[in-house]
Amino acid sequence: MNSDKLFSNIKKKKSFLCIGLDTDINKIPEFLLDNPDPVFEFNKQIIDATNQLVIAYKPNIAFYESSGASGWQSLEKIVDYTKNKYPDIFLIADAKRGDIGNTSKMYAKAFLDNLKFDAITVAPYMGEDSVTPFLSYHDKWVILLALTSNKGADDFQFFYDSKENEHLYEKVLKKSQTWGNKDNMMYVIGATKAEMLKNIRKIVPEHFLLVPGIGAQGGSLSDVAKYGMNSKCGLIVNSSRGIIYADNSVKFAEKAREKAKEIQAKMEKLLER
Amino acid sequence: MNSDKLFSNIKKKKSFLCIGLDTDINKIPEFLLDNPDPVFEFNKQIIDATNQLVIAYKPNIAFYESSGASGWQSLEKIVDYTKNKYPDIFLIADAKRGDIGNTSKMYAKAFLDNLKFDAITVAPYMGEDSVTPFLSYHDKWVILLALTSNKGADDFQFFYDSKENEHLYEKVLKKSQTWGNKDNMMYVIGATKAEMLKNIRKIVPEHFLLVPGIGAQGGSLSDVAKYGMNSKCGLIVNSSRGIIYADNSVKFAEKAREKAKEIQAKMEKLLER
Repeated sequence: MNSDKLFSNIKKKKSFLCIGLDTDINKIPEFLLDNPDPVFEFNKQIIDATNQLVIAYKPNIAFYESSGASGWQSLEKIVDYTKNKYPDIFLIADAKRGDIGNTSKMYAKAFLDNLKFDAITVAPYMGEDSVTPFLSYHDKWVILLALTSNKGADDFQFFYDSKENEHLYEKVLKKSQTWGNKDNMMYVIGATKAEMLKNIRKIVPEHFLLVPGIGAQGGSLSDVAKYGMNSKCGLIVNSSRGIIYADNSVKFAEKAREKAKEIQAKMEKLLER
Repeated sequence: MNSDKLFSNIKKKKSFLCIGLDTDINKIPEFLLDNPDPVFEFNKQIIDATNQLVIAYKPNIAFYESSGASGWQSLEKIVDYTKNKYPDIFLIADAKRGDIGNTSKMYAKAFLDNLKFDAITVAPYMGEDSVTPFLSYHDKWVILLALTSNKGADDFQFFYDSKENEHLYEKVLKKSQTWGNKDNMMYVIGATKAEMLKNIRKIVPEHFLLVPGIGAQGGSLSDVAKYGMNSKCGLIVNSSRGIIYADNSVKFAEKAREKAKEIQAKMEKLLER
């Protein structure tokens, strides 16, 4: 899926919402546990209830790996189900991978080829040859960590080169533009740092940004749009726990839809401006 | 396994060798493909042939994930087999994970609890709360990326703060010492940067270092020992492709043993100095 198609989906659905599928077997409604694959069933119902309100889903791979091989089977089923039933949905593997070239190539195969994800989140610490193997798939995306939403982001991402007047996250944004382009690379910018989007947009005016951290982590959607939106939206804003765990009863999917609808309605207004 | 036990294994085996299990179904001897689980069978034979010469194995998780759920099943079998048959072996999940706290907690569960690895490699970009969840398991280890062996290491790891006279990798080494200690944290330092170990030992004199990059990547074992060894060895040196793909015939395991023996013999001499 290229950036034009993404923007066209955003306009059609009046939404730039991504739902994070951080599906924890210990947090899903108890009645689902009788199902042969409760993790798949939970996600399926969430996806069926919300797909008209979102442009993307983002399974958080850790939550599937924590169930071992059976978690991977659930993940495979979720990707197949979504790709077959809702082909316009953009599917992000939130995996934060990155290793030497021959190893990143294997991760790329795992997520972009075998599993047919459209995109994968990648950590930049190991540099160019750890990132470029993910860029070799047509119409697929690297979503590179730049400025994350967590407290620990302050430890290294703001490391400062006074000579170049540049922070590490800025160097990541600049340097990585020589590896990919606005049609195969996005950046993770946490919503908890929304005011910094103004400066970030000077470095990456056209790239899509994946913005986690609204909801449970405390970021503000209107600030994100104010400082981060560009002429083609340029934003995919993620919410996970605030939507998928909105309710724990048989009505969980309906309640998730309501939560997603609340955010989508705000996004519709923000897109009209 | 704590650092004393690791050092005692090193002395007993006269080796600080780790074999990287980067097991690629397209590279293993063809005759193994008739086996119901060729990836497990390959690793099993490598481990049976070499376990007296090494202190550790390091499955490279990407290579298993690239086969999806069945790759995870192979990985689970490899860990179970090794832990049961060779309980003194230190098992490293080369996974390069790292995410916000609740997600790192899930990765920690996947690798250190469910899979019973002794250690996991972790990427530092997201800072403290992405690393500490891995430190909550007794006698288990984080092996944090500091200075990696690949070309891309130059892109960000040498980012320089002239005011503090400090590179990013040095900041990672310093800062992370406030999160863990020499009994639950090691660092990845690539053998291709061996001469830099002298300076690195000033920052982390007592910590174990996991050193990849000898063999296929071109690093020198004697330089690594010269600049990196401390009074309790303090080194785990990894070789992957040079050992496990030394031969492609029915004698692959025997040839792998020979290659491992060559390295172990050098290590024995280096340990005597």
